[in-house]
Amino acid sequence: MTASKHQTEIAADPDLPTIRIVREFDAPRERVFRAFTEPDLFAQWNGPRSTTTRVDRWDCRTGGNYRYAVVLDGQEYCFYGSFHEVRGVERVVQTFTYEDMPDGVSLETATLEDLGGGRTRVTMLSVLDSMQARDGLLASGMEVGVVEGFEKLDELVTELA
Amino acid sequence: MTASKHQTEIAADPDLPTIRIVREFDAPRERVFRAFTEPDLFAQWNGPRSTTTRVDRWDCRTGGNYRYAVVLDGQEYCFYGSFHEVRGVERVVQTFTYEDMPDGVSLETATLEDLGGGRTRVTMLSVLDSMQARDGLLASGMEVGVVEGFEKLDELVTELA
Repeated sequence: MTASKHQTEIAADPDLPTIRIVREFDAPRERVFRAFTEPDLFAQWNGPRSTTTRVDRWDCRTGGNYRYAVVLDGQEYCFYGSFHEVRGVERVVQTFTYEDMPDGVSLETATLEDLGGGRTRVTMLSVLDSMQARDGLLASGMEVGVVEGFEKLDELVTELA
Repeated sequence: MTASKHQTEIAADPDLPTIRIVREFDAPRERVFRAFTEPDLFAQWNGPRSTTTRVDRWDCRTGGNYRYAVVLDGQEYCFYGSFHEVRGVERVVQTFTYEDMPDGVSLETATLEDLGGGRTRVTMLSVLDSMQARDGLLASGMEVGVVEGFEKLDELVTELA
């Protein structure tokens, strides 16, 4: 598997308890949006390569909710939340909780920009309630899941072409 | 109508884009929780005294959602969001958007503490994605709605006794 030609930027804001992730994909926005919002597709690219994702609930519309498990060596790590807003093919706002840390909640906004020429930029903003919670999320190893997940997403949108 | 004997604290964090509201009520936690989570009761105390609240959707459970209108002189101001978590009688986490500012989303956590002796402390934390958004919410006149709403809630929990 060759490294992706696109870099994933993961930036912690110096002043706000937020994380901003920016990534481009060589695929039209509609296709990237499908990969973010259809459960069978989401399960194919989410998380590190060493894991699989099992979607338990997925009602991806404004006011809907979801739950999924990331499985690593038989261990399950479960996540749940609500879809606050699903707007066209351009924006998904959702809440996110890791079930083993039930008091932690982040608000995640994914924005998909059509760059023309069949290219799409995805910006994901995570907002937490303290710098400590934000730094804890960054230290959790989320980076490998994001980077490897987006590499799998590169492959998936190519297959879907 | 006499002023409430309980003060409502509304505090903007100096470093984080958050607002913390703290208020005590002379009512047991179960009753205050009902007033926060049952649509007919919520509509009776929400917002400034000059307004009425009409609940359009209200599915107050983990993964549910809501929409309501605050009506002032025939003008409707509509709000919607998801219930990320409803935990026992102690915690409600929800998203919140004013429909005329559709890109603005806050994450709101209400925590109800049993103080003993039939008293309850409610702490509400609102998290926004920038200091500007937080300051805009504070400047919107939300304070009068919170203070007068909680005075109505004092009266409601007395009636429910």
